[in-house]
Amino acid sequence: MKTLPFDKKRIDDLAKKHPTPFYIYDEEGIRASAQKLNKVFEWAHNFKNYFAVKALPNPHILRILKEEGMGADCSSLPELILAEKVGISGDEIMLTSNDTPASEFKKAKDLNAIINLDDISHLDYLESNVGLPKLLSFRYNPGPLREGNSIIGKPEEAKYGLTREQLFIAYKTARTKGVERFGLHTMIASNELNSEFFIETARMLFELVVEIKKQLGIRIEFINLGGGIGIPYKPEQKEVDIERIGKKTQDLYKKLIKNTELDPLQITMECGRFITGPHGYLISKVLHLKNTYRDYVGLDASMANLMRPGMYGAYHHITVLGKENERNDCVYDVTGSLCENNDKFAIQRKLPKINIGDIIVVHDAGAHGHSMGFQYNGKLRSAEFLMKKDRTFQMIRRAETIDDYFATITV
Amino acid sequence: MKTLPFDKKRIDDLAKKHPTPFYIYDEEGIRASAQKLNKVFEWAHNFKNYFAVKALPNPHILRILKEEGMGADCSSLPELILAEKVGISGDEIMLTSNDTPASEFKKAKDLNAIINLDDISHLDYLESNVGLPKLLSFRYNPGPLREGNSIIGKPEEAKYGLTREQLFIAYKTARTKGVERFGLHTMIASNELNSEFFIETARMLFELVVEIKKQLGIRIEFINLGGGIGIPYKPEQKEVDIERIGKKTQDLYKKLIKNTELDPLQITMECGRFITGPHGYLISKVLHLKNTYRDYVGLDASMANLMRPGMYGAYHHITVLGKENERNDCVYDVTGSLCENNDKFAIQRKLPKINIGDIIVVHDAGAHGHSMGFQYNGKLRSAEFLMKKDRTFQMIRRAETIDDYFATITV
Repeated sequence: MKTLPFDKKRIDDLAKKHPTPFYIYDEEGIRASAQKLNKVFEWAHNFKNYFAVKALPNPHILRILKEEGMGADCSSLPELILAEKVGISGDEIMLTSNDTPASEFKKAKDLNAIINLDDISHLDYLESNVGLPKLLSFRYNPGPLREGNSIIGKPEEAKYGLTREQLFIAYKTARTKGVERFGLHTMIASNELNSEFFIETARMLFELVVEIKKQLGIRIEFINLGGGIGIPYKPEQKEVDIERIGKKTQDLYKKLIKNTELDPLQITMECGRFITGPHGYLISKVLHLKNTYRDYVGLDASMANLMRPGMYGAYHHITVLGKENERNDCVYDVTGSLCENNDKFAIQRKLPKINIGDIIVVHDAGAHGHSMGFQYNGKLRSAEFLMKKDRTFQMIRRAETIDDYFATITV
Repeated sequence: MKTLPFDKKRIDDLAKKHPTPFYIYDEEGIRASAQKLNKVFEWAHNFKNYFAVKALPNPHILRILKEEGMGADCSSLPELILAEKVGISGDEIMLTSNDTPASEFKKAKDLNAIINLDDISHLDYLESNVGLPKLLSFRYNPGPLREGNSIIGKPEEAKYGLTREQLFIAYKTARTKGVERFGLHTMIASNELNSEFFIETARMLFELVVEIKKQLGIRIEFINLGGGIGIPYKPEQKEVDIERIGKKTQDLYKKLIKNTELDPLQITMECGRFITGPHGYLISKVLHLKNTYRDYVGLDASMANLMRPGMYGAYHHITVLGKENERNDCVYDVTGSLCENNDKFAIQRKLPKINIGDIIVVHDAGAHGHSMGFQYNGKLRSAEFLMKKDRTFQMIRRAETIDDYFATITV
């Protein structure tokens, strides 16, 4: 059973002042997840998670994560500027983008951010457009050497990264061009719950930095294991055993890196979902009940607020606030109001009997939730609230207005 | 082969002044499609297509369509306000929404728009929140009595509309409550290319209004056949035979409605894609070429500009501008820059040899294109240009700026 860090009364009070739908993020939970990840890697030299900004691109959240020692994994110019606004800069930022325009490389270089190149051709592109930095990282795509997971697909069908052969050429070329310091990055899973996957990724990268040292004499300073640590969206799913990831990675480190010239090798990651995902809640109110060929619950939220169920068929747990202890003896499709039949938060879901006006909490919406919202059908994106440690709510993003919707129309 | 209403020189000139990516809509083409649809129904009394605003919610486009005699099919408050801004009002607007909040019903009533109720329970909801109008329409969902098409799915699994049984109760109840004039709506296909589908829908609705007249003595004034007329996204697909739809619907009208008390029965539709879809083009530039396990073309556009390939796996034809006559002897994945592996405009597509800087035209982007765009990964939505009849370009939406991206952040 999934529990909530707030009760009905607190939400009713908030909803009286601010119309639903809105998001709530639990600061305490976010800090706890950040600390948990840092803890399992405390054995490692200077471990750093670069929070995947795209998961929850709000400066108030980034500020909290900066306090927890996290950096920012950025994938675009606006995300770099967002990090800059929060005072994150230099090697606290990693630009991991693909198909990157020169303007983004330029901003990253201006911020002294770590630039992680997605392709061997970007070396020349970066050099001729912006100039090469002293520190450079490359994204490795192992292709058929590794199996991807069900979400990110097969690595050899993914557009990201360099092949193994290209990687060696890239480091060598970069050194020739004057690059002095190096990192290595990969990202081959998304929302993966099996700890073994990440341990194998650590092994793969450890072996690769050893091989690069051996073949090229280049010492990689850090590896980035990527993100992709999943969260249990379904109540019956188990959390990823991240203690095991930390422990087994340490074992591999001892075996492969410790007491070599590569020691200390910094370990970094770019987890987003794992940090904020479980601590975000979409709060919505039941507008309509409908019975036709099925029973429908119509919310005031829609796919414009949370795209994952409609786009990926993703499961998000639902709690009917105040009815946590009632029996789930009704079956509903829980829908939004978009003129798209995939605008359903849940399909044929067992829930307690629902009434109009009930508050519906959609769980695990703290990552890739609000940030994926669109304005299709003229829908407006909702406000975001931070539930602080003292349990008060702070608005960290206002709801869109109709003026926002028309902002780019030219007369 | 798909042709273009502009040549490379015109686009190069425009792209010199305005950075790619951007949309171009061809006014002449849009008007021609509107006129074509009106023509096949010119036999019908007061035929009207309510353009599905969600397909291309730009006031400049709505104004053109108003000149062509079209109304606005709205599904939200912002869309109603958009129609109002263009001077569309009264029975030129149809509100076809689902899971509708009271504020939208209120605005529709204030505009004297035709309100099309999605559920029997909305009758009480509308009455108690806003009051009932004199004219009311209901959306019919035939459920297992009809097969849906592959895109909209089975009608009995769709959240929309009233069952047949509910429909009869709804009309009767509405009359009791003082409603005097009635319409009937359905929408059970999306992007359907088989003309037979629409003819069967016309037959279904004609038979239904006859039955309603017989059983309840209620005369339905108009039927709305919905939208859903598809467009041939693939070059080998054939256009829908809309002349046949017009002719066969006329035959059915003569057989079932003509010379009855139901004559004249207004026929309406809510086509969006058919009107603007083929006349919109996403113009993008090649930023990068990449060769790993496949050959990739990296554009400066992304899924943020056009969601359909990533969300639905939809095919959009691609022309490399100026290379229309070259042989398609290369195979590419044509990608955007989102950190999502589904951000591909084309997968393993045969195209001519592409160079960096080439202009790529994505066809059939005039409906559900820009309007479905999001800002995920910090991506900004592009400008829209209208190519007028004199072949000049008018900016009808500016590109988003970084300030737009931060507009709702509260400090």
